[in-house]
Amino acid sequence: MEKLKEYVSVKDEDHFYHQGAVELLIFNFLLILTILTIWLFKNHRFRFLHETGGAMLYGLVMGLIIRYVTKSPDVESGTVYECEKLKSGPSTLLINITNQVYEYQYKREISHHNVNGHQGNSMLQKMTFDPSIFFNILLPPIIFHAGYSLKKRHFFRNLGSILTYAFLGTAISCIVIGLIMYGFVKAMVHIGQLKQWEFHFTDCLFFGSLMSATDPVTVLAIFHELNVDTDLYTLLFGESVLNDAVAIVLTHSISIYSPKENPNAFDAAAFFQSVGNFLGIFAGSFAMGSSYAVVTALISFMHLTKFTKLCEFPMLETGLFFLLSWSAFLSAEAAGLTGIVAVLFCGVTQAHYTYNNLSADSKMRTKQLFEFMNFLAENVIFCYMGLALFTFQNHIFNPLFIFGALVAVFVARASNIYPLSFLLNLGRKHKIPRTFQHMMMFSGLRGAIAFALAIRDTDSQPKQMMFSTALLVVFFTVWVCGGGTTPMLTWLQIRSVLVGVDPDEDLKARAVSQSAPNLDKNTTKAESAWLFRIWYGFDHKYLKPLLTHAGPPLTSTLPEWCNPVARILTSPRAYGDQLKDGDTVYIINNDELTENYESSAHIAVPAQDSTASTQATGKEDIQEGDLGLGGYKLQLQPTSGQPQKNSLA
Amino acid sequence: MEKLKEYVSVKDEDHFYHQGAVELLIFNFLLILTILTIWLFKNHRFRFLHETGGAMLYGLVMGLIIRYVTKSPDVESGTVYECEKLKSGPSTLLINITNQVYEYQYKREISHHNVNGHQGNSMLQKMTFDPSIFFNILLPPIIFHAGYSLKKRHFFRNLGSILTYAFLGTAISCIVIGLIMYGFVKAMVHIGQLKQWEFHFTDCLFFGSLMSATDPVTVLAIFHELNVDTDLYTLLFGESVLNDAVAIVLTHSISIYSPKENPNAFDAAAFFQSVGNFLGIFAGSFAMGSSYAVVTALISFMHLTKFTKLCEFPMLETGLFFLLSWSAFLSAEAAGLTGIVAVLFCGVTQAHYTYNNLSADSKMRTKQLFEFMNFLAENVIFCYMGLALFTFQNHIFNPLFIFGALVAVFVARASNIYPLSFLLNLGRKHKIPRTFQHMMMFSGLRGAIAFALAIRDTDSQPKQMMFSTALLVVFFTVWVCGGGTTPMLTWLQIRSVLVGVDPDEDLKARAVSQSAPNLDKNTTKAESAWLFRIWYGFDHKYLKPLLTHAGPPLTSTLPEWCNPVARILTSPRAYGDQLKDGDTVYIINNDELTENYESSAHIAVPAQDSTASTQATGKEDIQEGDLGLGGYKLQLQPTSGQPQKNSLA
Repeated sequence: MEKLKEYVSVKDEDHFYHQGAVELLIFNFLLILTILTIWLFKNHRFRFLHETGGAMLYGLVMGLIIRYVTKSPDVESGTVYECEKLKSGPSTLLINITNQVYEYQYKREISHHNVNGHQGNSMLQKMTFDPSIFFNILLPPIIFHAGYSLKKRHFFRNLGSILTYAFLGTAISCIVIGLIMYGFVKAMVHIGQLKQWEFHFTDCLFFGSLMSATDPVTVLAIFHELNVDTDLYTLLFGESVLNDAVAIVLTHSISIYSPKENPNAFDAAAFFQSVGNFLGIFAGSFAMGSSYAVVTALISFMHLTKFTKLCEFPMLETGLFFLLSWSAFLSAEAAGLTGIVAVLFCGVTQAHYTYNNLSADSKMRTKQLFEFMNFLAENVIFCYMGLALFTFQNHIFNPLFIFGALVAVFVARASNIYPLSFLLNLGRKHKIPRTFQHMMMFSGLRGAIAFALAIRDTDSQPKQMMFSTALLVVFFTVWVCGGGTTPMLTWLQIRSVLVGVDPDEDLKARAVSQSAPNLDKNTTKAESAWLFRIWYGFDHKYLKPLLTHAGPPLTSTLPEWCNPVARILTSPRAYGDQLKDGDTVYIINNDELTENYESSAHIAVPAQDSTASTQATGKEDIQEGDLGLGGYKLQLQPTSGQPQKNSLA
Repeated sequence: MEKLKEYVSVKDEDHFYHQGAVELLIFNFLLILTILTIWLFKNHRFRFLHETGGAMLYGLVMGLIIRYVTKSPDVESGTVYECEKLKSGPSTLLINITNQVYEYQYKREISHHNVNGHQGNSMLQKMTFDPSIFFNILLPPIIFHAGYSLKKRHFFRNLGSILTYAFLGTAISCIVIGLIMYGFVKAMVHIGQLKQWEFHFTDCLFFGSLMSATDPVTVLAIFHELNVDTDLYTLLFGESVLNDAVAIVLTHSISIYSPKENPNAFDAAAFFQSVGNFLGIFAGSFAMGSSYAVVTALISFMHLTKFTKLCEFPMLETGLFFLLSWSAFLSAEAAGLTGIVAVLFCGVTQAHYTYNNLSADSKMRTKQLFEFMNFLAENVIFCYMGLALFTFQNHIFNPLFIFGALVAVFVARASNIYPLSFLLNLGRKHKIPRTFQHMMMFSGLRGAIAFALAIRDTDSQPKQMMFSTALLVVFFTVWVCGGGTTPMLTWLQIRSVLVGVDPDEDLKARAVSQSAPNLDKNTTKAESAWLFRIWYGFDHKYLKPLLTHAGPPLTSTLPEWCNPVARILTSPRAYGDQLKDGDTVYIINNDELTENYESSAHIAVPAQDSTASTQATGKEDIQEGDLGLGGYKLQLQPTSGQPQKNSLA
């Protein structure tokens, strides 16, 4: 009898072990299906259901199967046990059951109304994985990749507009959604669907902030395939990347906002504290992310005399790059800041400085690694969103609330894009045309970030209702708006040129800029903010030479009395460039990141070949870094035959 | 008051969320330290403490800090609560504590004696992560990489010896350790350190089997750097890779072994059932692993007329390759087989078939991806082993048992290597010299697998004692034997040539084999088992053409009446080769995997260049695939100027 009991217990454990494998296998299976579907779609140029929509669909079907086919819940499920001895929930609980001690790990606090029949189905339980995995492991590579592959020239040319959309636009969107939802909530209370005290105005604002995070994935993928206009692409990409960061910090600030007395009344002190929190968290996360990147740049830049440089060991270099970037995220989270913002700016800074110091091999390795991780993480998230519709056990679907959310999302998007575009067009030289505005309005898909923010807290009934609603809005926008992108582009007759720049046009532009260099520069100059110009000068003169092998040597940019220090800090390679090129400097860089690596990245292609390879891949910007700063002539003429570090090769 | 409570609960959750980030950050920090240390070591050619030893040391220090610096355990810790209503431990437990319902997740069953004071320190708890993460996520990439980068020619030349060491040697080692430990256990019972009933002979055998898994990581890394003799390298590598698989299946079989009555008496039926289990699990896992690889090969090989081939999309190809290989592991685990064995043979099969079908870009991507994952996973495991000494909370250190284990491990290694080498030398043409035997004896380090097997089950007191002891043996062997590898090699005066093959020597060998092709072939032939030769013929004639673009077209190998079918199944590229080369076939492949990618992998280098690039990187085998099978002439002479698919480029 003793023996038998032991045997059963071993079997039981086996069961627990294998379950980890089964869940992972389900995800693997979904991802394999998705990849095969993408392949199929690519073959048939089928664009009405995008791959992310497909991944979500597979997840949905799998969730349905898991919910209704797997074994029925345990007998014990749904029973709440009393424990008088305990005062609070400890992290670990030891329980003596029929003379065996079992260890239980704290999972979460749940409300009484959530104790329903499905609670005990361990398969469902396990499939709805921990939000912390979502945040700590799946999101960072996606956001980092977005920052790392930012097309810098176009981004900076539209910086003002992007910042306006991201900061002001998100705030508008958040408030509009909050107000509309508050109206709907009032109506629901009026018809008796909701109790008054459950839903405060701050909850509505919270919902507004999380629903303001737009997802670039689907639309940008389609834009990329269709080669849509560069400016539109950059505006949308820049807006949605920064807007995620803003929305996350906003959500965080609102969740901390706690007025002292009546939660519905306006508390000025608490409000300003929230605004302060917002600014503090944003700035802190920004600083955390960039400083990790600067540390990486410094390590990869080190040129101690007795040391072999790190770039001699591509594996170590890649590893360090990867770990430090991830640490930026984790440190920010651990310090109570926003990891997503940190990792985004870490990515931007890494691309700006560290990338220049990496060995050719590491440049390719890091690029491919992050691309791959981004691809996997993205598809896992979309599969998971599909799964969550059936595996999450405490959904609250309220038709009125869902309808209200759909209305609110579209109204908020409209009151963000159109008024701001109008204002921006007053100042912009290249106006944002009406068709672009319609397209931006239409492209406000909700995706991973909105979902992640909603799933982070699903304890109370209002939060559960928000989560269920957010999930449905994501489904709706991804399938309807995502699927409708191609028809919409055709209907709006948006110029479909190569993403990046039409090579022919750019060649002409180059010819023009070489003959009359000031023309093009002034145009760009006028568009760049003065603050940005000052920063760029500082960056180019001091930071770049200090952190990378690019840029002029410090000895020429620093005042003369700093020479002894400057000489130590300048890379020998900078002197080399100096000797070769006189006072002209190659400020072409980073955007080689976005290059299609069909052609080898570490065989140095002479500069004149870069045009050809660009035309072949059709995705590249030529003349990157032409930021319109006087004093640095752009030298890309075919005469420089020798391979150069910063050429597009 | 209500408000305050809510606030506290939110803070609490925040705390729980951030903890995930803190733990990951600690690991990241340790890994960054390790990478910097490796860099330092590489600069100073310091070899007495290897990087893995360094990682372990850092883990140890960090464990010490976490244990004694982090906050003291909860007040509730160590208290066992009674629950009369429950009959068994459900997977989820809902508990009502002061009117709040908390959800607790089943973690494990623990013995009464484990309920000690440290139980409640949640930081320690979280750092000792789930063994299922270890098994499902960290181990597969390491084992897959081992299989994927196997040097096939040398491996097959020594196949008989490797199989003997792996199967017979592991069995001997397991039994010897089991017997010695049983002696020590008897002695411990005699002096009153242990109760009779706690430690059965099967437990000793279990310990024996888990301690028989040798770890190639440390020694091979050193061998690789020092360019030790190829045959010794291959023998050790092959032995330790297969021996892990054997030890894992053996441990599994022994843990299932359950004699009906007296657990100390020999039960013939149960014994044969265990042997049957061993064979069944091994064969099943092998089949599972290879079939996943075959599916991958088929998908990547597909040449449907209307379809763009998968290799046009390197990202999808890489993703599919990665996911299917991981699925091989997970499916085997889910089916109750051994995932490690499955993923090992999946790796070997992928390298043999799928690799030939991949696009040049994917070849490089997969290689670098698995290399990187292997590197990270390896260092995480060694850091974790260091951490475990202080963070694991139920260590039982028994000096006599530990001493016994150290003695047993070395005696077992000796009684495995020396007698088997003697027997093998009777049959081998190239004898295994005495010095090699000493080196193999010395290189029997215990590492990740032994640790993973021991941590999988730490419920009972004997199992805890085994775990603590295994951990110390790992420390001892990695630091002492690992550190002593270089002096030992010098002392034994083992010929230190380039790993792979000395290029000069190989060039001569090639010249010889071209003038008298049968000489070299016969040598190898004599060493290969007849079974292997039959399989090779079958593989080359039917499987390779069916699954890859290499090999002769099926139309020439199948009987004539099969021609219609054969024509459909043969790749058009195989015909192309056929037309170019007549009936000679390039059977050089796969070992290009081990090539150093300093030189680009997808710029086709004409065949005559391969020698030069090999000499430069100094790690490559030339004339791979020369498996000594009559009928296929080896064509690598410099006359074939055009780029060839299977050349070393």
